[in-house]
Amino acid sequence: MPSTPDQHFLEHAIDLAIRHSSDGVHGPFGAVVVRDESVVGEGWNQVVAGRDPSAHAEINAIRNACRSLETHVLSGCTLYSSCEPCPMCLAAIYWARLDRIVFACRAEDASRAGFDDSKILREIKLPWPERSIAWNELGRESGQRAFDAWIRNPSRVEY
Amino acid sequence: MPSTPDQHFLEHAIDLAIRHSSDGVHGPFGAVVVRDESVVGEGWNQVVAGRDPSAHAEINAIRNACRSLETHVLSGCTLYSSCEPCPMCLAAIYWARLDRIVFACRAEDASRAGFDDSKILREIKLPWPERSIAWNELGRESGQRAFDAWIRNPSRVEY
Repeated sequence: MPSTPDQHFLEHAIDLAIRHSSDGVHGPFGAVVVRDESVVGEGWNQVVAGRDPSAHAEINAIRNACRSLETHVLSGCTLYSSCEPCPMCLAAIYWARLDRIVFACRAEDASRAGFDDSKILREIKLPWPERSIAWNELGRESGQRAFDAWIRNPSRVEY
Repeated sequence: MPSTPDQHFLEHAIDLAIRHSSDGVHGPFGAVVVRDESVVGEGWNQVVAGRDPSAHAEINAIRNACRSLETHVLSGCTLYSSCEPCPMCLAAIYWARLDRIVFACRAEDASRAGFDDSKILREIKLPWPERSIAWNELGRESGQRAFDAWIRNPSRVEY
């Protein structure tokens, strides 16, 4: 029986994972974003069902919370997830400026169910030439034009 | 003047960055996914404009390519990006199983324009208690129920 707010919202995330994955098509992951003791965004894994490799539970919960709060900044909010976020979701949590993350399972538990992100964590730390996906730098000078134009633009919105 | 297919598609990505960021609301980043010498997905930064912290150019290009190809797997495809992908986009590239990534600017060039992901890269490497966003483990046993149900489900779709 949940007895603290953290346990309550974490159970909500776990319930989303169990409920939505019962069809075998949605992966067994759930997440909620909470502000001031209220759920402002729910998410569950929709990678296969939604044909979107970025549609992890945490990313979906962040997107939904941003839609409901009409902002791209979630400071003041906590993310509850049924499992430790993968590197993609971890980075999204930092970009969203969440205050805190509470999770139930560890990455190794997800691996037991066939969802292994340990390779990605290893690859992030490797220098470009050693990565398993070819990582080619080209045309750096040409690309600078986008940043130069941005820096010169007085109407730019920083974030 | 672009003279190779790589240069051609990279210029396409850079053009998207310049064109869409001229309003000062869309960030100066563009990306395209290419398969068999054809663009199958375009993306540009929509974090502020779309109120979605995950809406980086690369993630949007991946999502659009998956929509157009009706799959969550982009093996056989190359991603061209106006800038080196951030850790979130790097992980999405691995989840999407792209073959290859070609980019123009480096992360340090983005930083010059006010978009700095170096903190995220440092945080990923830190143990949980040392991270600047509180990283709390709770209720691991309860969370296992989602994975246990998944493993027992004969209709589950692995990915």
